[in-house]
Amino acid sequence: MNGLNLPAGYRFAGVVTKLRTEPDRRDLCVVISDRPAASAGVFTQNRVCAAPVQVSRQRIGRDTTRGFVVCSGNANACTGDQGLLDANRMAELLALEVGCDPADILVASTGVIGRPLPMAVLEAGIPVAARAARAGADAFADAAHAILTTDTVAKTCSVVVGGGATVAGFAKGAAMIGPNMATMLGFLLTDAAVRPADLQPILRDACNGTFNCISVEGHTSTNDTVLLLANGPGEPLHGDALTAFADAVRAVCADLAMQIAKDAEGANHLVTIEVVGTRTDAEARTIAKAVAESALVKTAVFGADPNWGRVVSAAGYCGVAFEERELSLTMGDFNLYEAGQPLPFDAKAASSYLRDNRDVTFRLTLTHGTGRCTFYTCDLTYKYVELNADYTT
Amino acid sequence: MNGLNLPAGYRFAGVVTKLRTEPDRRDLCVVISDRPAASAGVFTQNRVCAAPVQVSRQRIGRDTTRGFVVCSGNANACTGDQGLLDANRMAELLALEVGCDPADILVASTGVIGRPLPMAVLEAGIPVAARAARAGADAFADAAHAILTTDTVAKTCSVVVGGGATVAGFAKGAAMIGPNMATMLGFLLTDAAVRPADLQPILRDACNGTFNCISVEGHTSTNDTVLLLANGPGEPLHGDALTAFADAVRAVCADLAMQIAKDAEGANHLVTIEVVGTRTDAEARTIAKAVAESALVKTAVFGADPNWGRVVSAAGYCGVAFEERELSLTMGDFNLYEAGQPLPFDAKAASSYLRDNRDVTFRLTLTHGTGRCTFYTCDLTYKYVELNADYTT
Repeated sequence: MNGLNLPAGYRFAGVVTKLRTEPDRRDLCVVISDRPAASAGVFTQNRVCAAPVQVSRQRIGRDTTRGFVVCSGNANACTGDQGLLDANRMAELLALEVGCDPADILVASTGVIGRPLPMAVLEAGIPVAARAARAGADAFADAAHAILTTDTVAKTCSVVVGGGATVAGFAKGAAMIGPNMATMLGFLLTDAAVRPADLQPILRDACNGTFNCISVEGHTSTNDTVLLLANGPGEPLHGDALTAFADAVRAVCADLAMQIAKDAEGANHLVTIEVVGTRTDAEARTIAKAVAESALVKTAVFGADPNWGRVVSAAGYCGVAFEERELSLTMGDFNLYEAGQPLPFDAKAASSYLRDNRDVTFRLTLTHGTGRCTFYTCDLTYKYVELNADYTT
Repeated sequence: MNGLNLPAGYRFAGVVTKLRTEPDRRDLCVVISDRPAASAGVFTQNRVCAAPVQVSRQRIGRDTTRGFVVCSGNANACTGDQGLLDANRMAELLALEVGCDPADILVASTGVIGRPLPMAVLEAGIPVAARAARAGADAFADAAHAILTTDTVAKTCSVVVGGGATVAGFAKGAAMIGPNMATMLGFLLTDAAVRPADLQPILRDACNGTFNCISVEGHTSTNDTVLLLANGPGEPLHGDALTAFADAVRAVCADLAMQIAKDAEGANHLVTIEVVGTRTDAEARTIAKAVAESALVKTAVFGADPNWGRVVSAAGYCGVAFEERELSLTMGDFNLYEAGQPLPFDAKAASSYLRDNRDVTFRLTLTHGTGRCTFYTCDLTYKYVELNADYTT
């Protein structure tokens, strides 16, 4: 983490409150921009969306954003009118410390659904966190740790853009808290100068090819949030420089997304699903997602079973039109199915491939065009069932 | 099984061949109608569909159908051109015994994907099965057993229609074979006289509300097949008698569908998802299916965790438009969420409800209209993972 480049003009904190029951576990994250920043956000498409999502969604797109506050341990979702009051109050508490309009503070939460936020804890904790916020790698690491739930490692990444600006990000994975609802959170910060009108499409495009191409079990959270703040002074980027910046944002998102899939709950394998040769990228993603979310594919990988019929049949039910003779499948270097015909293969060696590699790849090739998608998932293990079957009560 | 009413004019057999490795396991099923019958069929919508599905799909809708042959242990799916030749040959072998056109014989298979059928076994076995076919409950039971894979019990049902006709059916569940691909097969037989043009919509409607409202893990098989034969002599049913017949078909389908969900792989619980108050029945089904297929909902039931946020959030991501304040949720008699607000409940008693009942129910109520759906699924258990992670190799 110490080798990470960080953008100028941001302060970070991750502090321990009583939001979580584990002692000494950081659970409250604050990020403050020293200057007003342009902000962009991508949020869950779940109709049931958490109060912090409802609040933050209204507040992105400004160029006066000053920071955000994230609590871990309680999602503040399905909490009714009180939940909205509480999410607004979280922002207000940070705004009071920063000395800004509460509308310039964003908010996110992850954790159990349907329980009111312990506001006494946050009333005390947010001022403490705000005052503790400072620049530097250690504080950034604290912030990255404070948003985790059942993640086993913090997920951080940074990229230096040409021209001296930096994009840094941290994220948490699609994993349960206690035994509760998964959420994917990601936060990106840059000291590039970017107009809000440019920032939002850049973030949305980056998310589509990265965070929206990972899946643990396909259950869209109520709280998914990705935020991007750009606090650079001076003339906003345009032309090639803006394109280079967009590439950096996408690179950070891609790296964090893969870290999330690798650290998925109970996972033994990172499973990459590559689909090429579809009419459109969207069709490739539809196929890849169906394969990635098939419990049968995921248990087969867990069991080192080269049961390729499950992969082909998942492609078949996803709604994309194709004929069997237009489809081929490889797993690693094994050609399993070509133009609709099964191929002989060394089943023992194929099983070893699945057993002995942490990262395994299935590649589906169609004959329709140049559409493509790379999607990441994990295997379905006893540990996943165990982690998600525990009592909340 | 002995109390089952059977329609007149059908002979059944379920015999032991070498299709499956377990000794003395019936694995080849033959049903012969003594008279030409009207036939209807509903098949998988998977783009990758097995050879027997491709063959049978061409042959339904006639009024000269004489029977069908089903093999268990090999799906004859993803088997290329050879698979089609083999499926046709299966029908031909039975047609030779019956003395009919091969186009009057239907065919189905279930088992491992991507391996050629062991045709020597079938060349020998189908004539033996055809000659063994006879009327009566014992032979019907043999046939019902011969289509099973990891099902733990045979699934049969019959209903007597007004006017003396009978509808009987048998089915197998969405469960793995060896560690292989799931398939749902259902076969219904009646001695009512029904025109093919009436039979097909009756079967399709019946399937929509029954077999299409169960899910184990949402992975649509390459081989799903439901067939209905009607061999009654005389004037075809019409008017009220036809409606009564359709009700009987639906009742048999509903009963068999619930038996399948109850016997799902590794399941400890039958989970009923009721959705009411949507704009249309289709919207209700979309919501129910999303809840039923959520790995998080299914592990929560396994763990007796009244984690209702998972149910509500699954409804939220399924694509049906609603506001949180239009949604309420009960689990058994527990009111958990009402008009978008969480309700206090006895968490310990709610956990006991899940732990102590084999059958549990979630009911989601919306405020949009009179649409409704009842959907059946099961919990996600260690046993499910174990059954599906075993090696094929």
